[in-house]
Amino acid sequence: MKKLIYLLSVILLTISYNVQAQSNQVHDGHVHSKGFVAMDKNGVFTPYEFERKAIGDNDVLIEIMYSGICHSDIHQSRDEWGGSIFPMVPGHEIAGKITQVGKNVTKFKVGDYAGVGCMVNSCGICEHCKKGEEQYCDNNKTVYTYNSRDFDGDPTMGGYSNNIVVSEHFALKIPQGADMKRIAPLLCAGATTYSPLKFTHVGKGDKIAIAGFGGLGHIAVQYAVSFGAEVTVFDVSEDKRNDALRMGAVKFVNVTNPDELKGLDNSFRVIISTIPTNFNVEQYVRMLKVDGEMVLIGMPAANKIPSVNTGALAGRRKIYGTLIAGIPETQEMLNYSVTHNIYPEIEMIEANADAINQAYQSVLDGKVKFRYVINMETLK
Amino acid sequence: MKKLIYLLSVILLTISYNVQAQSNQVHDGHVHSKGFVAMDKNGVFTPYEFERKAIGDNDVLIEIMYSGICHSDIHQSRDEWGGSIFPMVPGHEIAGKITQVGKNVTKFKVGDYAGVGCMVNSCGICEHCKKGEEQYCDNNKTVYTYNSRDFDGDPTMGGYSNNIVVSEHFALKIPQGADMKRIAPLLCAGATTYSPLKFTHVGKGDKIAIAGFGGLGHIAVQYAVSFGAEVTVFDVSEDKRNDALRMGAVKFVNVTNPDELKGLDNSFRVIISTIPTNFNVEQYVRMLKVDGEMVLIGMPAANKIPSVNTGALAGRRKIYGTLIAGIPETQEMLNYSVTHNIYPEIEMIEANADAINQAYQSVLDGKVKFRYVINMETLK
Repeated sequence: MKKLIYLLSVILLTISYNVQAQSNQVHDGHVHSKGFVAMDKNGVFTPYEFERKAIGDNDVLIEIMYSGICHSDIHQSRDEWGGSIFPMVPGHEIAGKITQVGKNVTKFKVGDYAGVGCMVNSCGICEHCKKGEEQYCDNNKTVYTYNSRDFDGDPTMGGYSNNIVVSEHFALKIPQGADMKRIAPLLCAGATTYSPLKFTHVGKGDKIAIAGFGGLGHIAVQYAVSFGAEVTVFDVSEDKRNDALRMGAVKFVNVTNPDELKGLDNSFRVIISTIPTNFNVEQYVRMLKVDGEMVLIGMPAANKIPSVNTGALAGRRKIYGTLIAGIPETQEMLNYSVTHNIYPEIEMIEANADAINQAYQSVLDGKVKFRYVINMETLK
Repeated sequence: MKKLIYLLSVILLTISYNVQAQSNQVHDGHVHSKGFVAMDKNGVFTPYEFERKAIGDNDVLIEIMYSGICHSDIHQSRDEWGGSIFPMVPGHEIAGKITQVGKNVTKFKVGDYAGVGCMVNSCGICEHCKKGEEQYCDNNKTVYTYNSRDFDGDPTMGGYSNNIVVSEHFALKIPQGADMKRIAPLLCAGATTYSPLKFTHVGKGDKIAIAGFGGLGHIAVQYAVSFGAEVTVFDVSEDKRNDALRMGAVKFVNVTNPDELKGLDNSFRVIISTIPTNFNVEQYVRMLKVDGEMVLIGMPAANKIPSVNTGALAGRRKIYGTLIAGIPETQEMLNYSVTHNIYPEIEMIEANADAINQAYQSVLDGKVKFRYVINMETLK
C-alpha cells in the first residue's frame, strides 16, 4: 500500500511537472521561447520572444542551461558570409536538460542532460546522412541550428534562448559526470576540431601544428596532445604562449616574429588552421612535409583563402576544409572529452543583451582568450 | 674454330664501335655535345656545342634519337617561373640508344633503348629517395635534367641535343616493341599524368575529369580510360571535342560555354588539372564530390592558384599538386604504356633552331593540339 501511494505520487508529480512545463511554454502546439536577437546585420542584440515549432513525436524539448558564443555567430549576425536571415537568434553550442519528449523518443527521458550542436535536420536517406555525416548531406538538405530554414520553410532559431525543440537524432547525450558549465562549446568547437584530428589519424609521436590558439585552437591542442602528438602552436598573441605550453604544446611560435618562423619548412604532417581571419596560407603549406595536410576549419570573414603558389602544393601537400562533425562523431567527441577531462576554458556571462554585445566586442578586440558562455539560467 | 672466330669478330666489332663512339664524342674524359640553346630569357634558340661531364663508372651515354617539347620548357626558357639558368639547353623527354656504359653499370648494355625524364640525380639516401620518390628528396637534392645544378655545381643540360650522360639509376628502360618516335613525351607527360591517377586510385567506374586537353591532358585521358574510369574532359577549344571522344572520354565540356558547365557541381571524385595558364580553380573544386580531390599538375606561368572560397573546400575537397613521378613509377608507366599502346599524338619536327622556335610559337598560339617531338637524328 505504501509502495502504491509512493508510485502514485511519482506519477502525479511527473504529470504535474509536464503540465506545468507545457502551460509555461507550449501554446497551440507551439513552444514559446525567450532569447536574444540580432534584427539586422548591425549584429546588435536585444531581448526577443518567439514561437518554436511544436514538439513532434520524434522531438525533444530542451531547457537551455548554457549557450556558447562561437566566432561564426559574429560572422553571421553581421552577414559577413552573405545570405544571413534576420531576425536571427544565434547559438549552436547548447547544453541543457530534457523537459519533454515526443511519444516515439527512445534516446532520452525527461531530466536527461542533452546538447545541440550546429545541425537540427537533414534528408536522412542519402549516403552521407546514412553514414552519420549529416553535414555533408548529398541532397544538400542539412538544416543548421540557426540562420537556416527547416523543411517547413521557417527560419531556425539558435541557443541564445531558454529552450529549443529538436528531433532526438540531432540531440546529443551529455555523458554523466560532465561539467555542464564548460561543455556547451564542445558542441561546435569540440566537434570541429576533433573531426579533422581523427580524419588525419593524428596519433602518438605525430608532429603536427595548430594555427590560431583561440576558441577552436585551445581545444584542438588538448585533443592532439591527448592523442599523443607533438604539437606546435602558432598565434599572433604573445600572451597565449604560456597557455599553449600549459595545455601541452611542445612549442609556441609567435608568427609576428619572423625569427620564430625560420627553419620550419617541411616540418609537419598535419596543420589545422583555426584562424578566423585572412592569413598567409602559403606560409603554412610550406611547413608541411611531403604528403602533409593543411586543414582549414576557421572560416575567414572574407571567406577566401588567398592565392597559393602551385609549387608549394607539389609534393601532394593538401589544402582542404572540414565542416563540424556528423552526429555519431559529435557523440564520440563528447564521450571522449568527458572521459579525458577536455573542456574549453570559458568566461561565463549573464543572459542579458548588454553582456552579449560586450562579449562580441571583446572577441573582435581579441580581448577574450578562449570562449564566452552565456548562462541561460540567469535569463530574466 | 668457326665459333671462336665469330666470337672474336664480335668482340673486335664492339671494341671498334666503342673506340669510334669515344673518338667522336669523348675528349679529356668529357663528352662533346651538340644541340640548341636559349642564351637568355627571350627564349630564342640557336645551335650550340658544349661539353658534358665524363662518363662515370655508374653512368651511361645515350645517343638521343627523339626529344619532346614540354610546356615547362617554354616557361623555363622564358624565365616565367624565375631563377632560370642561362645558357639553357632544355628537354626532359628523351628517348635514345645506349652507346657507352660505365664499368659498374648492370641495368643497360650498349645498344639498349633508354630514356631520360625530368631528373638526373638526388641524394639517394633519404626516406623518399630510398622509396623511389626522388622528386621529393628530403634533402632537397633533386637535380633536374636541365635548368638545375648537379652536385659538382655545373648547370645540367637537357635533351635538345645529340647525347646525354646520366647515371644508370636515372635512365629508364624503354620496353621492347615501343614506338620510339612517340615514346619520348611519356618521360615527362606520361609520368606526370600516370602518377596522380595511380595515387588517387582511379579505377573501374570512377567518375573523374581531366581539365585541359593538351600535351598532358590527352595522355591522362588515355590512362584513365584504360583504368576503366568514366572520363569527362574540360577544354576551351571546341576543335578538341572529337579528339577527346575518340580517345574514350564520355563527355567533353567546352568551358567557354556557360551552359555546358551547368549541373556539374558535386560530380567528380577526382579532377586532374593539366591547365598551364591561370584559371578558375574554384569552379572545378565545386564540381568535386565530398572527399573529392583536385590535383594540379599543370603549372601556370604566374605560378599561383587564385584565391578559393573556403566553403568550396569544406567537405574535405582537397587541392594539391603532384610532381612528375619517381624513377620506379616512371618505369612502371613506360611498361604499362607500351603494353597498352598508350602514346601521345605527336608532330615531328626537324632538329634545327628555326623549327624549334616555330614550334614554341605554335604552342603559345594554341596551334599544336598535343605534342611536338624533335627528331634529333636530323641534327646536322
